[in-house]
Amino acid sequence: MTVQSAEINLPDIVAEVDAVFAAYEKALVGNDVAMLDALFWNAPQTLRYGVGEHLYGFEAIQAFRQGRPSQGLAREITARSVTTFGSDYAVANIEFVRAGNPRTGRQTQTWVRFPEGWKVVAAHVSLAG
Amino acid sequence: MTVQSAEINLPDIVAEVDAVFAAYEKALVGNDVAMLDALFWNAPQTLRYGVGEHLYGFEAIQAFRQGRPSQGLAREITARSVTTFGSDYAVANIEFVRAGNPRTGRQTQTWVRFPEGWKVVAAHVSLAG
Repeated sequence: MTVQSAEINLPDIVAEVDAVFAAYEKALVGNDVAMLDALFWNAPQTLRYGVGEHLYGFEAIQAFRQGRPSQGLAREITARSVTTFGSDYAVANIEFVRAGNPRTGRQTQTWVRFPEGWKVVAAHVSLAG
Repeated sequence: MTVQSAEINLPDIVAEVDAVFAAYEKALVGNDVAMLDALFWNAPQTLRYGVGEHLYGFEAIQAFRQGRPSQGLAREITARSVTTFGSDYAVANIEFVRAGNPRTGRQTQTWVRFPEGWKVVAAHVSLAG
């Protein structure tokens, strides 16, 4: 195998990832925990580094979300980059700001297409500095 | 297509990613800028979110490295997770600590195998909190 340059950002694939990325963002700011869970890979290898936490495995991520306050999740995306590789792999990165917080937020997601659909297999959220 | 569960963490692929991950870590702590550059995808879509910077494109990442002090790069890896998907995709995540800094470091790398070898296509480094 190997990924060829012709397979980077195939328009149909970018459109698919744009759609799941948008669904995730909507679910995040609305604290739609069921949708957030549905968009993460249900596996022990899934991980999420949050601003202050390190969550290993789907169950740990799910438990964190269920315990999180539903307020203050709104954010404005200030930069956005989606790149797809072949038909089954993508990275989605954003910078964001939240009202009242001067630090720039950054979110990295790695997406993989499984038989059950596109899922985040690794995520990293942080505040710069 | 789609990635099947049988294609997760194929031992030969994990061994390859372990090797390039180790090469990157060695180059990082030794400030081997040429090797670090060689392990990143040479493309405008490559990005790296650092502790305090947001770098878009291979050239921006390369320029940042050339301007960075070579001291204080040593670190101890305290947690590590590598997961591969099929033969061409992987995520590598670590937690790390640096002497004198109480905050936990986190590094996420998304790797893709191109004809020229395994390359980081997106990286995110941050300090918790």
